[in-house]
Order: sequence, then C-alpha cells, then structure tokens
Amino acid sequence: MFYHIKELQYDAKPTRPDPVFAKQLQEVLGGHFGEISVALQYLFQGWNARGDEKYRDLLMDVGTEELAHVEMLATMIARLLDGASLGDQEDAAKNPVVGAIMGGMNPQHVIVSGLGAMPADSVGNPWTASYIKASGNLLADFRLNLTYESQGRLQVTRLYNSTNDPGVKDMLSFLIARDTMHQNMWEAAISELEAQENIVVPSTFPKHLEKNEVAYDFYNLSEGEQSSRGRWAKGKSMDGLDKFKYYSKAPAYGEKPFLKPAPKHIHNTLPTIRSEQDEGENE
Amino acid sequence: MFYHIKELQYDAKPTRPDPVFAKQLQEVLGGHFGEISVALQYLFQGWNARGDEKYRDLLMDVGTEELAHVEMLATMIARLLDGASLGDQEDAAKNPVVGAIMGGMNPQHVIVSGLGAMPADSVGNPWTASYIKASGNLLADFRLNLTYESQGRLQVTRLYNSTNDPGVKDMLSFLIARDTMHQNMWEAAISELEAQENIVVPSTFPKHLEKNEVAYDFYNLSEGEQSSRGRWAKGKSMDGLDKFKYYSKAPAYGEKPFLKPAPKHIHNTLPTIRSEQDEGENE
Amino acid sequence: MFYHIKELQYDAKPTRPDPVFAKQLQEVLGGHFGEISVALQYLFQGWNARGDEKYRDLLMDVGTEELAHVEMLATMIARLLDGASLGDQEDAAKNPVVGAIMGGMNPQHVIVSGLGAMPADSVGNPWTASYIKASGNLLADFRLNLTYESQGRLQVTRLYNSTNDPGVKDMLSFLIARDTMHQNMWEAAISELEAQENIVVPSTFPKHLEKNEVAYDFYNLSEGEQSSRGRWAKGKSMDGLDKFKYYSKAPAYGEKPFLKPAPKHIHNTLPTIRSEQDEGENE
Amino acid sequence: MFYHIKELQYDAKPTRPDPVFAKQLQEVLGGHFGEISVALQYLFQGWNARGDEKYRDLLMDVGTEELAHVEMLATMIARLLDGASLGDQEDAAKNPVVGAIMGGMNPQHVIVSGLGAMPADSVGNPWTASYIKASGNLLADFRLNLTYESQGRLQVTRLYNSTNDPGVKDMLSFLIARDTMHQNMWEAAISELEAQENIVVPSTFPKHLEKNEVAYDFYNLSEGEQSSRGRWAKGKSMDGLDKFKYYSKAPAYGEKPFLKPAPKHIHNTLPTIRSEQDEGENE
Amino acid sequence: MFYHIKELQYDAKPTRPDPVFAKQLQEVLGGHFGEISVALQYLFQGWNARGDEKYRDLLMDVGTEELAHVEMLATMIARLLDGASLGDQEDAAKNPVVGAIMGGMNPQHVIVSGLGAMPADSVGNPWTASYIKASGNLLADFRLNLTYESQGRLQVTRLYNSTNDPGVKDMLSFLIARDTMHQNMWEAAISELEAQENIVVPSTFPKHLEKNEVAYDFYNLSEGEQSSRGRWAKGKSMDGLDKFKYYSKAPAYGEKPFLKPAPKHIHNTLPTIRSEQDEGENE
Amino acid sequence: MFYHIKELQYDAKPTRPDPVFAKQLQEVLGGHFGEISVALQYLFQGWNARGDEKYRDLLMDVGTEELAHVEMLATMIARLLDGASLGDQEDAAKNPVVGAIMGGMNPQHVIVSGLGAMPADSVGNPWTASYIKASGNLLADFRLNLTYESQGRLQVTRLYNSTNDPGVKDMLSFLIARDTMHQNMWEAAISELEAQENIVVPSTFPKHLEKNEVAYDFYNLSEGEQSSRGRWAKGKSMDGLDKFKYYSKAPAYGEKPFLKPAPKHIHNTLPTIRSEQDEGENE
Repeated sequence: MFYHIKELQYDAKPTRPDPVFAKQLQEVLGGHFGEISVALQYLFQGWNARGDEKYRDLLMDVGTEELAHVEMLATMIARLLDGASLGDQEDAAKNPVVGAIMGGMNPQHVIVSGLGAMPADSVGNPWTASYIKASGNLLADFRLNLTYESQGRLQVTRLYNSTNDPGVKDMLSFLIARDTMHQNMWEAAISELEAQENIVVPSTFPKHLEKNEVAYDFYNLSEGEQSSRGRWAKGKSMDGLDKFKYYSKAPAYGEKPFLKPAPKHIHNTLPTIRSEQDEGENE
Repeated sequence: MFYHIKELQYDAKPTRPDPVFAKQLQEVLGGHFGEISVALQYLFQGWNARGDEKYRDLLMDVGTEELAHVEMLATMIARLLDGASLGDQEDAAKNPVVGAIMGGMNPQHVIVSGLGAMPADSVGNPWTASYIKASGNLLADFRLNLTYESQGRLQVTRLYNSTNDPGVKDMLSFLIARDTMHQNMWEAAISELEAQENIVVPSTFPKHLEKNEVAYDFYNLSEGEQSSRGRWAKGKSMDGLDKFKYYSKAPAYGEKPFLKPAPKHIHNTLPTIRSEQDEGENE
Repeated sequence: MFYHIKELQYDAKPTRPDPVFAKQLQEVLGGHFGEISVALQYLFQGWNARGDEKYRDLLMDVGTEELAHVEMLATMIARLLDGASLGDQEDAAKNPVVGAIMGGMNPQHVIVSGLGAMPADSVGNPWTASYIKASGNLLADFRLNLTYESQGRLQVTRLYNSTNDPGVKDMLSFLIARDTMHQNMWEAAISELEAQENIVVPSTFPKHLEKNEVAYDFYNLSEGEQSSRGRWAKGKSMDGLDKFKYYSKAPAYGEKPFLKPAPKHIHNTLPTIRSEQDEGENE
Repeated sequence: MFYHIKELQYDAKPTRPDPVFAKQLQEVLGGHFGEISVALQYLFQGWNARGDEKYRDLLMDVGTEELAHVEMLATMIARLLDGASLGDQEDAAKNPVVGAIMGGMNPQHVIVSGLGAMPADSVGNPWTASYIKASGNLLADFRLNLTYESQGRLQVTRLYNSTNDPGVKDMLSFLIARDTMHQNMWEAAISELEAQENIVVPSTFPKHLEKNEVAYDFYNLSEGEQSSRGRWAKGKSMDGLDKFKYYSKAPAYGEKPFLKPAPKHIHNTLPTIRSEQDEGENE
Repeated sequence: MFYHIKELQYDAKPTRPDPVFAKQLQEVLGGHFGEISVALQYLFQGWNARGDEKYRDLLMDVGTEELAHVEMLATMIARLLDGASLGDQEDAAKNPVVGAIMGGMNPQHVIVSGLGAMPADSVGNPWTASYIKASGNLLADFRLNLTYESQGRLQVTRLYNSTNDPGVKDMLSFLIARDTMHQNMWEAAISELEAQENIVVPSTFPKHLEKNEVAYDFYNLSEGEQSSRGRWAKGKSMDGLDKFKYYSKAPAYGEKPFLKPAPKHIHNTLPTIRSEQDEGENE
Repeated sequence: MFYHIKELQYDAKPTRPDPVFAKQLQEVLGGHFGEISVALQYLFQGWNARGDEKYRDLLMDVGTEELAHVEMLATMIARLLDGASLGDQEDAAKNPVVGAIMGGMNPQHVIVSGLGAMPADSVGNPWTASYIKASGNLLADFRLNLTYESQGRLQVTRLYNSTNDPGVKDMLSFLIARDTMHQNMWEAAISELEAQENIVVPSTFPKHLEKNEVAYDFYNLSEGEQSSRGRWAKGKSMDGLDKFKYYSKAPAYGEKPFLKPAPKHIHNTLPTIRSEQDEGENE
C-alpha cells in the first residue's frame, strides 16, 4: 500500500516554456526505457518475488522511487507546455519561428492532453506493458533492470545535450545521478547472485540435459573473421566451465526440412508434382 | 547480403504432433525474448554499429545464427501442428480429450496460418519491433543482449519441462546450449568494454555535470529495512568511485508543484477558489 | 513522491490455487478497465491538474489507493498460480481434468512470468496507455473516471459469480465496495462541476460559434421509430437551453463530394473518362 | 443492413489546402475519441443489445450518424491535402515556410495514403478497437458514450481555435453542435436508467454481498486534506443509501504478503536465508 | 451518409449456443482479414478516391455491404454466446465437458462484453486500423482487396469445416458465396485497370528512371535451383517488356558499408582500434 | 540456415546527410509494406510451405533477397543521420532552417537509436508482425505478395520524387527495379496456380456447399448507378462459371434480429417493457 506526499523528490522547474523539448522529453517518461517502465517493472518484480525478503524490499524501494520520477517528469512536461498552442498555419507560414515550433510539437499536447504530460514516448506511441517483464528469476530480471538503467541514462544524457535551459538541465542532472546509483545497485545485486549461482541463467537447469557439445562454440556466419579478435572467441568461458571455440565456418547439423501436406479441410495448396529426389531427400 | 542453405542448423523433428505444445512453443519464436527478437535486434545493432569492426562482425555472426533458430522453431511448430483441426465442439463435448486439446490450441493455427508457425507469442500477440533496440552504445546494447539470452534460456528450460517428446526435447537442448554460449559471449564482450569504460553507461558523460551528491545514495521507500542487507547498501560502489550510502527515510528535495492555469483556447477547467495558503505555498 | 508500506490494503488469500481463475482475474488487473488503468489515469490527471487544489488532491488520493489495488490483485494472482505447471499434453490427454485446466490457463503464467501476475488482460493483451486519458478538462475526465469505475465494478461482479473460493470472493467483495464508493465519489465531483458549468463539455466554448440549429436534433437513421420513445426525443434538453426535436428522416445538409485529381508525383490512379454530369454535379 | 447516399451530412469544404491542419484533424477522425470510435462503439453496443428495443434503435441511429461524420472528416482531410508534397529538404532549408509546413505534416499523407485521410490519430497511431467497448450493461455503456462525446467535443473546440479557415470552422461548428446534442442525449438516457436502477453499476449485484463497511469511505492517501472540501467527503452518498465518511489517514486492512517458493521446474530464484522474523510474520 | 434498416442481409441463427465456436468465429469479424477490415478498407478507399466515379461508387457499394456482414457476424456471435458462463473451476474439474468448454472460450465474452461480439480476432487481439490501407492508387488497392477476399474466404471455409451446426453453416455458405463474387469483382476491376496501365504499379513512374538492368532478374539466394522451374525464371516477363533471367548465384553490386563515428553528444561507443585494412576497404 | 557477406546488394550512399529524409525513408524499411514485412512474410511462407519444392525455394530466394534490402535501407538511413542533433530550441527559433529540420526529424533517431535506423515506419510506429501473413494457401499468399510489392513500389516512387540527392535516387532506382521484377514474378506464379485451380481461393471448397444463388450478384448499396458501368456488373464472371448480375437495389434476405436477455449472473441491463409488436416480429 502506498502513501503520497506532495513534495517532489527533486524540483522540476524549467526557465521558460519549450513545447518542442516537451515532446522530446516524453521519451524518458513514457518510452521503452522511460520512468513508467522502470516503476512498473520493479513493482511487478517485487509483487511477484518468491525469494529473499531483501530482494523484494529492494525492488519495492526502487519501484516506489521511480514513481516519484514519473511525477517529476510529468510536472516538467506540463510546465514546458505552459501556454502552448497549435496556432494557425497561415500565420505560421508568415512567421517561420512559429512554424518551426509547431512542426516540432506533438499536436496531442494541445488537442488531447490540454497541455499535460502523456503516458507516451517522443513520437506519440502510448506506453505499453509489453516493454516490461517480471520473470520470477531474479538474476534474469536484475540484468533486465541494469539494462533499463543503462539505456535510460543514455537517453537522458542525449536529452541533456539538446537543451540550454538551466532548470531542465538541473533536473536531468539529478536523474542522471540516480541512474548512476541504480546501475551500481543492480550491478551489486547481480554480483551477489552470480557469486551464488554462476553466470548462466537459469542456474538450476541440469547441465547434462543441455547439448554441451555446442555450448561454447562461436560460429562465424558473417564473412570475415574480425569476430575472432574478441574475448568470446578464445580462452576460458566466462562461466569457467569450458573453453570458447571459434568455427570459421559454421556447420549445419540438421537435415533439409520437409513438411507433410495439410489435410483437406485446411484448404492449403496441395503439392502437384514432387520429384523423386525431393522425396528421397526428406523422408 | 545473405545466402540461405536448406539444411537446418539442427533438426526439428517431434515424435508426434502436439498442437497444444505448438501454441506454447510460439513464445520462444515470436515472444518478447523469442528468436525473432534476438535475430532482428542483433542485426539492427550490427547495421547501425559505428564502432570497432569486430563488434559489428560479432553482431552479424550471431544475428545470422538467430535467423537459423527462427527457421528451426518455425519448422518444429509446423510439424507439431500436422493434421490438427479445430474439430466440432459437440463432438468435443462428448470426448473430453479432444475438448482439452481444442481448448489448449491456438485457433489461428488452423484458421489463419493453415498449420504453420506464426510470428506471434504463446497467447497470440503478434511480434512487435517495440521489443527490440539498437542504441548505438554497445555496452548498453550488449547488456540488453545478455538479458535477452537470459530470459530466453529461462523460457526454453520451462518449455523443456512441459513436454515428454524426445524429439522436441532434443531440439530444445540444442537451443539451451546455444543460449549458454550466447550468455558467455555477451558477458565476455561486456567485460571487454567495462574494462575500457568502467561500468556506468554512458561513460562519456562528464562526471561533474551530474548531481554527484545523490549518485550513490540508496533510498528506503518501502517500510522495513531488509534492503539494507545487500551489497548495494554499503561499501565501495561498483564503479569504484565512491561509497554506497543507505537512507532509512528518503528525503524529498523538491517543492510541492503548482501548475499555471491553461490559456482560454485550451478549454480546460479553470480554478474557481484558491485559498491564500495554496497560493503562498506554491509560488 | 510516494512511500510504500508492506501491509496490503486488504487481504488477498485464496483458499486454493486456481490457475484458470488467475487467467480470468488478469482482466481487472491489466485490462482496459483494470486497476492499472485507474491508478495511472488518476495520477496523470492529478499531475496535469491546473485547477483547484482539492481536485488535484482528490485525484492523488484515489490514484494512490488504486496502486494498492494493483498490489492486491498481483498478490492474489501469484497465489492462485502456486505450483501451477503446463504439464505434458500426453498426460493431459489421459486426464481430462488436467487437460481442461491446461486449456484454460494462460501459458505465459508459466513460461514468461514464472507464476507471477502480468500487466495484461485475461486473454494476454499487454496493458497499454492508450486505455487512459488526462485531458485537462476535469468534467470530461471525471466522467471518464465514473465510467471506468462502472465498467470495472461490472467486470468484478461477473468474476465474483465465476468462482466458489471464499478467499477470492472476500477480496472481490472489498473491491466491489470500493467501486461503489468511487462511483459515488465521481458522481459527487461531477455534480459539483455541473452545478457551476452546466452539463455540456467544454462549457467555455462560445455558444454562438456552434451551429445551434442542429444542436438539439435527434436524427432517425435506423428504420423504425422505437428511438422516439426516449427522453432524448422530446421535451426540454438536459442542459435546459432548448428543446429536443425528433426527425423521422434525417436530412443531408451537404453536397456530394468530389476530390481533385492528385498531382503526378503522387502516382495515384488518374481519372480516365468523367461524364459531364459528374463534373457538373460536383464543382 | 446499410444504405449509402452520396450527399454528405454537412459540407466539408476548406478554403485552401493546409496539410499541417490535415494532420491535426486526424485526431478527431481516428484518435481515441474520434468518429471511428463512436461509430463502431455505438454500432457494437446496438448489435449486442439484449435490452429494450428503443435503446437498440437509439444506438443504431446514432452509430449510423457517426459513420457520416467519419465520411465528412475523411473528405475534409483529403481536400486539406490537395496538392501536398514532401518536397525536397535542400529546398526546404532555403525556404523556411516550406520547411515549417513539411515539418508539421504527416509524411504518411504523401507516402502511404497518397493525399487521403487515414484511420489514425494526429501523431500516426492507427485506430485500435481497444478504444471501444460494448459491455451489455447499458448504464455502464451510456456513461462511456457520454464521456466520448465530452472528450470528443473538447478536442474539436481545441481544433476550432487552431485554424482560421472559414470552411473548416463551419464544418467544425456543425460537429460541435452535434456533440452538444449527443451529450444531452446520453445524459437523458442515463437519467432514465438511473431513475430505474439507482446510480451504482451494476444495480443487480446483491448489496449484502459487497463489503458494505468500506463502500462509502474516502481514504486520504496523499498528504494534505484539500480533498476533504468536496461533496464526496461528507453528507449523504449520491446513491442515497449511506453517508460519506472521510479518513484522514487510510487504514491497511491486510497483512504483509508472503509468496511460497516456486516449484523447481519453474527455475525461479529460490530463497537462500529467510530470517525467523520474516517467516513468523507471514505464515 | 448512411441509413440502416433492421433486417439482416442474411439470417444469423445458430441451432444452439456454442461459446467455443463463438471465439473462433471472431477471426472473420475482427481479425486481419475479417469483415471490419474489408468494410473500413473499402470505405476509406472510396472516400479518398480521386479517380473515376464508377470506382468510387463501386467501393462505396461493397464497403456498405461489408458493414452488413459485420452486423450478421456480431449477431451470430451474440447468439452463440446465449447463456454462457465461466462457471467455476472446481466444478469444471469434476466435469470435463464443462472444463473443455471453459478452456476453449474467450473469457472476455463473459467478463468484458457480457455475451456480446467484440471487435477482436479469435485470440483476442483488438482490431487495428494498421490492417487496412487506402493508397490512392486503385490498382494497388484493388489487388489488396482481392487478397483480403482470398484470405477471408479461406478462413471462412476453414471455419465451415469446424462446426456441425446447420444454422451456422447456412450463414457461412452465404458469406463464402459473397466472397466468390467479391473475388470475381476485384479480378474484373483489376483487369480493366491492367488493360489500361500494364501490370506494374505504379504505371506512371518513368521507365528510364528505374535501374532497368536488374528489373527482370531472378536471384537464386537459397541453395538449390528448384526455383528455376517456374514461369518467373524464364520467358517473356509478365509485363511483356523484357525477358526473365535466372542467376544461379546472386551478385552483390555494393561495397562493404562503413559508418562514420557518431559525434560526441550522442554518447555512442567510439571505435578504439581500427586496422588499416578496415579503413582502406571502406572509405 | 543463413550466411552473411559484408557487401551490400547495392550501394547505399547519400551525397549528404538529410535527417528529415531519413525519417521519411523509414516507411519503406519498417512500415506496413516495407522491407521487413516482405522479408519476414516470404520467409514464413517458405518455412510453412507444404506444397511443391519450387514454391518453397522461390519464397526462400526472395525472402533472403529482401533481408539484403533491409540492410541497404538501414545503412542508408544511418548515413542520412550522420552528425544529426536535436539541437536547442532557442537556437532553432533564431535559425528557421535549423528549426525546420528539427521539426521534420524523428527525435528517436537521436534519443533512442543514436543515429541508427529503427524497425519502425515514418511516423514512428514500431513494425508489427500483424502486417504479415502466411496462410498455407499459396494462391492467397502470392496475391498478398503481389500486393505488397505493388504498394511498396508505389511508396518508393513517392519517396524518389521527394529527394534531390543523386546517391539516394540511385539506390531507390535499384529498389524500384527489383519491385518491378517481384511484381512480374508473383504475377507469373499466380498465373501458374490460377491455370491449375481457377481464380477463386480456396479452389478446394466444394462448389455445391456455397450459396451459389448469390455468388455472382452485384448489390448496389450506394445511391447512384455509376458502379454498373464496370466489367464486374455484367457479362461472364471472371472464373468463367456464371454471369455477373447487377441489382439496382440490394435485397435483405434476413429477418430483424432479436437477442435473448442475458442470464442474471452477467449483470446486463434487462428489458423493461417490450411491445407485443417487437416480440411478434422477432421470435
């Protein structure tokens, strides 16, 4: 259960309205790696956690913080939109500055949300829960979380470079710092779990049931062997259980597939003539 | 540019048709962490790579392999569907076994694809490119890739436990092994990059521009301090640049937000009475 | 900014696992009118509110409560999934009870979420922010909110009738009661606003700018005049400004449209022969 | 069954092309609250209606009218696009007016639809049937309909203020007036049903089965008691059955949740150490 | 503008309820090639038509008929759902017939639509306007239409084979016949246009501007030359302008691509070491 | 299984960066009829093919070529984005050329993809597998393929007219030529199948089971008889089996529908008064 206080976690005060930047900033509110994604992803992982209480508590702490980030960004976007209008295109044609602003705005910020933030990304795709996952396996999920903080911080730094507004930059510098913490934090949690489980997820699948012959092979499938120069191509595997092996030409272990004709009630195209060779090859 | 050979990378031969399992297996073909996702994600990352040739080549190698996995799973699903039918519900009512199969099938496997695999997940959501990303920052992207291989292998092991068919299990054991390799591989590539760049993505954002005061703080926002027991709550930060600090009660650094009324042409609700206190607090 | 406490707003304890009902219950967690929708809709309306503080506070209060409902449902679904498995279809064929359960389950509850709740509806569509809106006009939005509580309570009562589990019924009776409150509450807030603004949204658009001649006409466009028997067909209009007027046959006020051919660079089909009559009619 | 006549319900003639406004106008054609939504929502509600014939007829009348509005908007948009082109960006760089227009256009209006209207909103999201619902409960659905007419009219008035074109304004004034009627109409139909059923939807769920103790409580969950100043916080409830009660601090009625570990075949993370306290608390 | 009459174009009366078939039948109502798709696709093509009046009229005629098919299917589905319930899973476990039915039903038919049809496909994906297109080029669009009638009729015949209900079969035989007509009709319209324009769309792009050297080449890119046995591999091209030419091994006409490093503000990974060879090859 | 070579099928070298055109060009990479669609559609049709080997091989050849087109477009887009930036809006306001470019860019090309191509269309909708189909019936699918090449070539020609860059035009002229071939090719394959099967898909549904009385009727449902002037309105049907027949006024063969009230547990609105006439008509 949650309680809300009215203070923001950090201030969200632009120096002046900027509806074009408001559109861009939507990316880190309602985009794939935006604050809605991390908030709901961590909360769902927490609610579904069947493991140690400290991990559940960790997830609830950080998910709850991310809700505050959603709030800060929503507030900032609303303020960047203060007084915005779609204007009139005839006027815009006469005043290119106005036209440029209108061209760079999201028209839904006027028509749909009435100068408010939207749960959508910078081109207007509504946020979708298909962005997020809670798998029940914490190592898999913490890696997902580390990734979201990495992609998210990357996006915020790109936005930081796209504005001159000191108020906006101040808030972004706070979010960038929190993402620094959250990358450190998930890295720490991952280290703990990898120390217990080794690195391959899931660690509980019996090793003898997988096809170990191919579990450390690198297959060169794109002409040129530049890929042989990396750590993944030779030496001990990262899980310490075997050695990497590089194949200059990847083998095909399987046969050519052949599918049986469909029964009549499916109304598929039926084969007319099949050469003996074809049949011999496949069955 | 690509060339195709007809042999499968590994065989995809079930012992018998099983349309219920065909539906479930769609998850790792066309779901969030399925083979379409990794194939297209690696290829797009490769095509967009502006960095070292070895990373581009690596991405093209593995992306090209994943196309072969799409092919294997599509073939396996088509064979699991051999001869399937939606039957007739009156008959099904008399024969619960038939009814159970029909209930567990994806009806689109008959109506839409005519006993073929679909680019969709196990509940029928069509695959969407919103699952994947190529950010131009390789460390961010390789973390995403490691995650996809982690979640993907987890899903395949769950499917392995849901079938008794030795042919299906054989193919899944191959995919599980390849995911072992791919987790090792991305881990290796990540190690290389982290050794050059330290762990926080992006490494090129100037440290003095972020709000360093909050870059290593853990905020307890969910009652109870179980989260203080983890590596992330104390000691040196993972990037080696500072120390983790645990706050039992997270502070609010910002003020209560107040938004200006919208201009008239927006037709929003206008404030009627605002108490002096409200105004004093916010402006 | 938010704080979380570990206690649930109300208990979420089923008497026994029931993965089929877990699938159904997803509807009111992650469906169109589920708890994620109301939580985020109210919070976004609150964050974007530019009107009276009491409405903003109201929205934040109720949005924050709805987060607790998301938590309760997520917990209930995870418990309904305790120990679930997709089993093996050959076994299922022998045991129709098992088969029926498997047929009625959501396979992603095993493969993807590992026995956890998902931010999706009862057929597996991921929740999407296109379900929700915050328009800046509070009367428009409160009507939306009343609607969501109406459709939501309707769905919960249908689910109540679909289970015998007393633990589940107990939690649903709590949610039903809260929806009773929330319908009463939005109705009260709507009454306040309608008393100030009259009923037509937005109330600030100048009456003389709309085409008043057609603002109270009912057009019969589906053969048969059963629609003339309702309150909307005669008597004073609900806004008190005019009278309803019923047209047995709806007029067409406009002309037949004719579109100019596209310029050549668009590569559309060009008209070949146009009769004089066609041209005369339209231009 | 439907018949079509070629005359438009009302004229759709702009004074001049305006591809930027064409993009914006798409919102009320193919957006959430656009004409496609109301047309199909009312028709589906009508086709599914199992209640009085007059309500079914009402729904068919209005749904059929909304199809005419789709037609008017499609025609208007096509004419606003007359002769549009994406031009060439080098030229645009020299001529800022052209550049501004190009920046504000939807490129799909040239590339995809060849100067025609699209079933999409103002930022290009294709219309989706997830916008609409027909629940079988007419009071729930009529409230949804009133909401759609409220949000829709709000959007049209915002568009009215964004253009100077008298032809466009004329058509919008017609749509605004029809939305005035439709709000009055749904309000009237709602009044009829509420008079029969009282206001809480659904009215047929037995009152003694819901948790009546919490059915009229307002929970203050966002710090500050501005929300206590509204009609919903005190006095008789709107359904006349009880009194509103305001809680300054909302109680938690439930316990801390604890989830059982998942079975082994799910490959979730297993708990390593659980303190006695944790166990005592939860089981 | 449209008028509605209450008679259905053809009867939609099942012999008995069958909620499992109701779910399946949704495919041809709200799926990719269902009646909503053809209705709206033809209407939008008609509204956007800038060519001969007879084609516009044709599109409006058939689009209007398809609305009647939507109505018939919605009615049929509602009747197939008469009296359906999700029941209780404990009971279902005891009665496998009930369990099988519940497993095969769409739970939203109870929870969401209250025994009504939904604008969605057989697995519950809501209909989306991304299924349909109106391009302004009639030959391109009529081919799309022929395709939709082909895929649609295929799906209806598969459903015909999945039911024993004579009432359902009767209605489906009507729809199958109308699809026969509509395939003949679009074929006829295509013939007319191809006679005027030749077969390649668009016919108005100047032949000398395309790379004619590769405009009739077949590239063998999948090992094995079975593809050389078809009409497309030799002889006169279908447009009569050249000859097909078969390449056993497809050439690569382009160079290896190399992308410049991104500017610093993008925070992409920068190349560390590039071999001279790499540079020489690409620049 | 696939192999990749580093050479592009054809060069993808613009003369200069042009981020606005990069946005537009996304349409034919990741839009409905873009290269991702044809690549995956042909490959899935090939993998699912249960008919003649030559058709399967054909599909694999062309699907593999389309992967090379995805690669070319991704490379071209990355180069058009070289050095792009979102800049700062205050500066843009001073320099309308910069503002126009920013307004016409896709901000995700900076924020999300870091100057790389995205699997999305020209307005930012991510590619979705709901665009594509593999039905198992080759005639139905080849018609779909012909359509995609028609719509695709149309879009590329529109883009060709929107740029002056000779490098871009050169690549587009290659793609236009390949689409010429692919239209010829699918036309050839369709001819082969139609020669065997006649034109109505599926050809295997028994003619006597469809309602032949209505299988060649044209129904005039949109006022005005311009539609009677086409080939579809008179003469032999295209399948040669009957004659087209034109109905000036389309008949309604069905009755007015009436739906039974829902059972109580559904909580739908119940009918209050039904006139005798209504009842007599419908039951």
